Order: sequence, then structure tokens, then C-alpha cells
Amino acid sequence: MPDDDRQRSHWAWGWAHKLPDENARRLLAAQVSALLGVPPGGFAPREAVPLAAARIAPSRAAPPPALAAFTTADDETRARRTYGRAWRDQWRGFHGDFAAAPDLVARPRDEREVEGVLEWAAASGAWVVPWGGGTSVVGGVEAVGGRERAPAVVALDLGALEQVLEVDTVSRAARIQAGALGPALERQLAAHGLTLRFFPQSFEHSTLGGWIATRAGGHYATGPTHIDDLVEAVRLVTPTGVWQSRRLPASGAGPSPDRLALGSEGAFGVITEAWVRVVPRPRWRASASVRFAELAAAVDAARAIAQSGLWPANCRLLDAREATINMVAQNACVLVLGFESADHALEPWMERALAIARGAGGEHAPPQYRDEGGRAGGGEAGRWREAFLAGPYLQPALLSLGIIADTFETACTWDRFESLYRDVTGAVREAARRLCGAGEISCRFTHVYSDGPAPYFTFIAPARAGEEERQWAELKRAASDAVIAAGGTITHHHAVGRTHEPWWRKERPEPFYRALAAAKAAIDPKGIMNPGVLGLTGGDAAR
Amino acid sequence: MPDDDRQRSHWAWGWAHKLPDENARRLLAAQVSALLGVPPGGFAPREAVPLAAARIAPSRAAPPPALAAFTTADDETRARRTYGRAWRDQWRGFHGDFAAAPDLVARPRDEREVEGVLEWAAASGAWVVPWGGGTSVVGGVEAVGGRERAPAVVALDLGALEQVLEVDTVSRAARIQAGALGPALERQLAAHGLTLRFFPQSFEHSTLGGWIATRAGGHYATGPTHIDDLVEAVRLVTPTGVWQSRRLPASGAGPSPDRLALGSEGAFGVITEAWVRVVPRPRWRASASVRFAELAAAVDAARAIAQSGLWPANCRLLDAREATINMVAQNACVLVLGFESADHALEPWMERALAIARGAGGEHAPPQYRDEGGRAGGGEAGRWREAFLAGPYLQPALLSLGIIADTFETACTWDRFESLYRDVTGAVREAARRLCGAGEISCRFTHVYSDGPAPYFTFIAPARAGEEERQWAELKRAASDAVIAAGGTITHHHAVGRTHEPWWRKERPEPFYRALAAAKAAIDPKGIMNPGVLGLTGGDAAR
Repeated sequence: MPDDDRQRSHWAWGWAHKLPDENARRLLAAQVSALLGVPPGGFAPREAVPLAAARIAPSRAAPPPALAAFTTADDETRARRTYGRAWRDQWRGFHGDFAAAPDLVARPRDEREVEGVLEWAAASGAWVVPWGGGTSVVGGVEAVGGRERAPAVVALDLGALEQVLEVDTVSRAARIQAGALGPALERQLAAHGLTLRFFPQSFEHSTLGGWIATRAGGHYATGPTHIDDLVEAVRLVTPTGVWQSRRLPASGAGPSPDRLALGSEGAFGVITEAWVRVVPRPRWRASASVRFAELAAAVDAARAIAQSGLWPANCRLLDAREATINMVAQNACVLVLGFESADHALEPWMERALAIARGAGGEHAPPQYRDEGGRAGGGEAGRWREAFLAGPYLQPALLSLGIIADTFETACTWDRFESLYRDVTGAVREAARRLCGAGEISCRFTHVYSDGPAPYFTFIAPARAGEEERQWAELKRAASDAVIAAGGTITHHHAVGRTHEPWWRKERPEPFYRALAAAKAAIDPKGIMNPGVLGLTGGDAAR
Repeated sequence: MPDDDRQRSHWAWGWAHKLPDENARRLLAAQVSALLGVPPGGFAPREAVPLAAARIAPSRAAPPPALAAFTTADDETRARRTYGRAWRDQWRGFHGDFAAAPDLVARPRDEREVEGVLEWAAASGAWVVPWGGGTSVVGGVEAVGGRERAPAVVALDLGALEQVLEVDTVSRAARIQAGALGPALERQLAAHGLTLRFFPQSFEHSTLGGWIATRAGGHYATGPTHIDDLVEAVRLVTPTGVWQSRRLPASGAGPSPDRLALGSEGAFGVITEAWVRVVPRPRWRASASVRFAELAAAVDAARAIAQSGLWPANCRLLDAREATINMVAQNACVLVLGFESADHALEPWMERALAIARGAGGEHAPPQYRDEGGRAGGGEAGRWREAFLAGPYLQPALLSLGIIADTFETACTWDRFESLYRDVTGAVREAARRLCGAGEISCRFTHVYSDGPAPYFTFIAPARAGEEERQWAELKRAASDAVIAAGGTITHHHAVGRTHEPWWRKERPEPFYRALAAAKAAIDPKGIMNPGVLGLTGGDAAR
């Protein structure tokens, strides 16, 4: 079992020692009581079932001899490769329910061993679930139905493949193994003065391969934000051969092979490495916060800046509730602007962006400009990132108090945002009050494009004891129904997995889906690769 | 027959009246003699076989009753829908060879009529070749083998579908029918103060649908250059239903349906309309030309600017030969820089780009800044565009003199450019001298990315009478072999069609191609859609 395993919570997001302790959780309970206007004292901290007492489904398979050197049926290792980190995953882990545990965990040390796993699976009918950091919030790594429909389920953990293999400083690109976690790949790139600058909120616990498989969204609020834009070439091991695209800055030759691999969620094969575009560490930074009395004015400013050609690294809008909860402002919307560059000072960029924001009615203190010279960054940006990465720990802390808190996200064109915001917040708030007696929802923009924003919603509601799973599912359904009805996408960067599939079905073009199912059947004729994600099960079953 | 038909040359690029006349061609012959160091007088202008004397393959089919209102078997209409505008296409047209003419030309007036064509084709086994502007240089619109293998071939001309249907000024997007030519869609967008700013060299004669089907490359030298980046949603009529993606600024839900439609070259269906991202007409412009004594230094400057985050609209490098031929400079490389914005003045951007260029050894006159206020553009940019759009007329003019001139293009990572340039120019020059006794080749960058340039090559060689087609094919092969061996892509923006397929075969991942063939079979089970492009023929035949 890898060393990191024991330091990570067996049920909750992230590192075990970072989960708020009992005192912190009592404080949190008081804050939420005030926020939701419900009596204090209703939320009592409970403790998770320890792993030693958990119900882990027994393994149905011994490691096959050909894979024995890197495969285990050990209970704890399997329990830790059972779920992602959706609310429901953490809920089940909290209660010691690991009924969906895979039968085996394989941790190949090279690509040949990855191929070995697929060969064994194809021969035996076992299901293979590629496992990166296990942070999916959409059921992307839980082999639902595998115990009933396959003789064995193997979690294929890419964690031993974490090297930066090549760096091309001229073209600013690096070849990196898919199992590298964010910090590991950044550490290796830093030795060359380079960075991928891809910081999803899961950064510490998710992998390059996982980002590519799920089309993760990263650091930049504008411009090349999705990992899609940072991929120069991809290599997958599929059940019917290696899929390796050519390193190219761009091509117009047929549909892009990389764009078909991006978002394939393990249904086609196992991503083993990729060439990605890297940049030097930024030297100049500029930042500012702009306040708006009204959301509509703040949205106008964000839109005008997104359409200006200034390409800010940060252009994140918080609605009044989000700004209040995060103690950024009281009852005002806030637009957080940031520029960064390794090439030039940023005054003209920031001054113009602020002029646009003022023109829309915003007010702001003077912007901050920093020249970090050759020094490693940190400072304010580092602190902000630490707070950002700490965000997900609130969810399991609240869960242990009997409070449902979750996030969902989308993207829509600007013309639809006002009604989407109204309908989605209305639907979730109404559902929370009807189901749970109270509830709040807030919104921010994580990314903005010339033609629309990517709104990210957070909701919170007091669960009724014994009803938690059902209540969560109904809130999730209310949110997803409202997003699709309002013209959004079911996901801007959380992926489809198994959870979002019923709504993705309403969004995707039907002939496209038949094409995808046929592609799956051609590449994975036995249907062994992560069956169920994207609604794909292999062969004709998916059609 | 549409009015424009008669104004277009029946064999050569573009408008008939813009083809250089006999005097101009004699002057051209003298210039080429000097350039190639061959005796003057060797190149005598010949005239093309008039359409009335051309050999047009007879139609094998009468318009079916259900399609009769918009379908014709007229000879001239069919002849004008036979070929694209590759060198070999123009060669055959020049000699009156229209042996590959389709049997019918359908010109649907609405989407229902498009569906009618596909329904008839599926029932009868006819092949359908979607026809936009007919400017393919890769055999994308010639139904090779259709006379032998199908009862009829129908060219499906989208030209009657040319409306801008909706404009969303808030999100800066427009819904446009696929048959709209560049000038037609720009004229309609201009009424809203908007522009697509997509100016491929084929702009006057190619369509939105063609751009999407072939992943065309456009105006901007950096940033969103391919039409891929400008597409918000696509609508295709396929043989098994309508493929309509949702209007979204971005999504992370599964592989992107739009990215599978982009580059599909008519093999999946007929693109009927798309939502595309538009921008206001730029107000501020900045331009400069920087000279370099050595190509390596100019490449360094282009690379540093491409990696700077300044995102120039223009960053086009001409090698010394290209600069000399185009009379931009004598024996120096030239980097043409341009910025444009509808939002802000551009001095800080241009000053920094020029500082980078000087740092690499470049020399330049003061840059030009223009504020065009609200006035329609034009001026220098307009003149440049006119010269740019006139470029392709040289090819048929030279062809009529017995001179082969052609272009090809690629993209590669920066680390490979030096060897690609050396190997590709060396291979083509060597082949030209061996085959034709003389030859020259020049290079420019049409687009630059952080991780590599898109080099565009032009070659010229005196053909031996009677050997022209073979010599052209051998030069094309020498160029393509060298590009692929040097690590480039077989096309950055000219597409695969039928001509590039043997080289695309070496570039694409093999499992990806099986996926694509399976997707084709699922969407077009009878194999009626443009069989042969991308090597796809429908059903199992392609595997």
C-alpha cells in the first residue's frame, strides 16, 4: 500500500489531519445555524466508522500470477479504492459502507504492466477501473454493477507512474506520466523553472491522467482553462492497442484524436502519459477586487472583461451570498481580477480591466502590483491557493454534523445567465426548504468566456436524520433538472461519470452518442473499460 | 444555375475576370525565368479548353421526382461541381477533362430538402458529396470511384443556405447557415457591427460549413485561429438523424461532440448551420515589420512573442526567399506583427513585442498605430487583405505557362522546426531539380503557437510538357514524405480529403482511426456520405 494512503482519510476529502476537529466542527455548526436560521444545538458532531470496523465487501479474486507482483486483494487497499469524493461517497464511507469495493487493486510500475492488466481482464471478463487520485464527484471510479455482472473488478491505480519523463524547454512542453499528482508534477517541473499552472481545487489529490480523462478545469479564468487546451499529445493503452497521438502545436487533419480521448473517462483505455504545454513561473502579478451593489452590474463587468481581449488569469465573480459567506464583503458582489506574466509588467492590462469594471458601476481599492523577480512565488497568491485547496474539507465536516453541503457547476451563454441563475437558485432553495426545512445557495463564476460564464453553485441544507441520502439525491436532481432546463451544460469541469449521465443524455446530440458507443465497441469490444461511465457499457448494450 | 457560377472560372481559382490576362502572364513568365535561372521564352501562355468544348461525363441519373424542384442534371452545372481547386484539379479543368462530374447537382433551399437528398441516397445507394465553395485542395469534393461503385453521385450544393439566422449581441454569437460564403456572412454580420474575423485565403469562395468540415485556419496568427475555436454549436443532418449540439461557451461533459464534427469532411453528414463566436469590428490597430539577417533569429523572435502572452493578431514570418519574391525585403527575413482591438489602444502590446524582436536581433521602422474610430476599416489592412486574396490566382496563371506552383503546410513543435525546414525545403528542391531541372521553395509562418509554428511552403518548378501530372504528384509526394518524416502534421488547415490520406495514415493513432471508422458506420450505415474522404468508406470496408 502506498505511504500516502494512510495519511489520507479513508472516507473524507483529502488528508486525514486536515479534517476539522470536533471543536472546529462545533463552531461550524453554530455558524450554519445562524446562516440557515435554524435553532443552534441541532447539529451534533458524530464520528466516522473507523476503517477497522468498516464493512468491506470481500474480494472475489486472488491476484492472478501474471499480475501478482503489483496487485493486491488487501482489504484496506481495496476499501480506499472504492469511491470517489462525491457527497454520497463520503456519506457511505463515513458509515463504514464499502460494499462496492473492487476485488483487486493493481498498481503497475510501467506501461507493460498496464497492458498486462488489460490482457488479463479481456481474457477473464474482469472490469477495469482506471484510478488516478480518486477525487471524482460524479461516480467516475465506482464500478456500479460490477459485482453482479463481472467475475472481478480491478482498480487500476496509476500512482506508481508519476514521473516527468522529458522536458522540451524550447517548445515549452513536457512528457509526464498520467499517475502524477499535481504537487508531484509541479515539483519536477520546478526543477526546470517551469509550471503547468493547472490548479483545480483537487490539485493535491488528483492526477494528470484524471484531469485529461475528465476534462478538468484549471487555474486560468479566461483563455486556456480546460486541460484540453494544455494537451499537446496523449498516450492511452486500450484493450486493442496503444493510442498515441503525435506531438503537435495544432493540426487540421481530420477530427482531433486528442479531443476524443479528452473526456473519455476510462471508457476507451488507460491514459498512461501525455505531452502538456508548460510555462515559466510568472514573475509579474497584478490583483484587485471590485465591489458591485447589484449582481447584474457585476455580470456586465465580467462579461465586458471576458470580451475585451485582455485575458486576465483571474476573473472570478462572487455573488453577494458567496462574498458574505467567504467574508470577502458584506452584501455586495465581488469581482476578483488577476493578471500574471513571466514576460511583462501588467499595469496597462489591469488599468484597462478596472476601467471597464468602473464603467459597469464597480468600486475598488488601488490594485496590487508585484514583481517577484526570480523568486519562487507565494505570498498572497500562495495563501489564496491554500484557502482554495482547504475548501473541500468543509463538506465532510458538515456531513458529520448532519448537514448536506454540495457544489455543482455549469456553463451557459451570457444571454441565458440571468434566467439560469434565477431558476437554478430558486429550484434548489425551494427543494431544500421543502425537503429539509431550510437551505441556502450561493454562486460564483469560476471561468468566463467571450460567450458565457461558468457558474459554480454551493448549497447547504440541514438533513433530516435517516433521510440524508434521499434528500441529497433529490437536491441533486432539482439542481441538475434546473441547469438543463435553463440551457446550461450538466458539467463544465466535473465530468459525467455515472451520476450525471441521465442529464447528459438530454444535452448530447443523439447521433454523436451512437458514434461514441460504436467507437467504444471498436476499441473495447469486450466492454472491460470502466463500464457505465458516460452510459457506455461496451458492445451493443450501450445503444 | 446560380448567378455566381458564370462569373467564376470553370477551371481556375476564383473569379474568371481576375485570372491574369495574356500580357500579365508573359510578364510572369519572364519573372519566373529569372527566379529559376532558366532560359526565358520557354514558357508560352496557353488557353484553357472552353467549357463548351469540355469532355463532361454524361449524367447517369435523372433528378428523382421528390428532388426535382432543386436538382439538375445540367452539364455545365455538373462540370462546375466536379473538382476542388488543387493543382491537379485545375490542370484537368484547364484541359477540359470533367470525367469525374457528378450525375446530379442538388441545391436544397431548406434543411428538409437536405434530408430529402439523404433519404433518396440511402434508398438508392447514391453517393452524396456536400459542396460548399468547392475550394478544397485535397480532393475533398471529388467522388473518386463513384462512377464505378455507386449508381449515382450527387453534389449537394449548400449555396442556397446562406443566411445569418440569429445574432446574440450579448453573448457575441451568431447562428449562420452553412452555405454562407465569407463575404455574404460578413455583410450580414456588419449590419450588427459584428464580424467573424475569419479570413482564410479562400475567404471569397469558401463557406462556413466548409470551414467547419475541414478545420480551416483563419485570420489570427495566435490564439483562436482555427474555426474550431470559433464554433459554439454545430448542426448536421446525418443519414440517421439530426446532430445538434447545445449552445455552450464550454463544457466538460464527455468528449466534445463539436470536436468530432470538426474535421469530419462530410463523412458523417451535412453541416447545415452553426452558432459561431463573433466580435465587434476592431477600432485600434498596430502594425510593424521587423527584419532579421538570419532565419534562426527571426524564428527565435516569433517563438518568444508566441510564448509572451501578448497574443498578436498577426505574427507572420517570411523567410528570405518569401520576402524577396513578395518584394517585402531583399535577402532578409521579415516578421510582420499586428495587434488589433475593439477595446483598447495597443501601444503597450506592440512596444513589448518589438522589444522582444529587437532582443533577438531584429531591426524595424517605427510601428504604425491607427484609431479607426467608428469607421469601417480598410486602409492598409484592407489592401493587404486584397493582395492576400489575390495570391491563389498565380497558380492557374503559372499552370497555363507550363509551370508547376503549389503550396503545402504543416505544424510542428519549435524544437523540430530547424530540421523540418532544412529537410522539407531540401527534399522538395532536390525533387524539383531532379524532375524538372530547376525549382525553388520558400516558407512563411501563417500561425504560431506557444509550442510551435505552422510553416506554409510555396514551391515552383518548370514542368516538362506531357509530364506535368506525374511531376506534380512526385513533388507532392516528396513534400508530404518529408513533412511526416520530420515530425510535422500532414495538414495544419488544408484538411485530409483524399489526397493527404496516405500520410495522415502515418500520423493518426491506429485505435483512434478504428473508433472513427466505427463511428462512421454507426451514423452512415449505408456509406453514402462523401465516401473516401479521411479514408472512410462506410461500414466495414474502412477497417
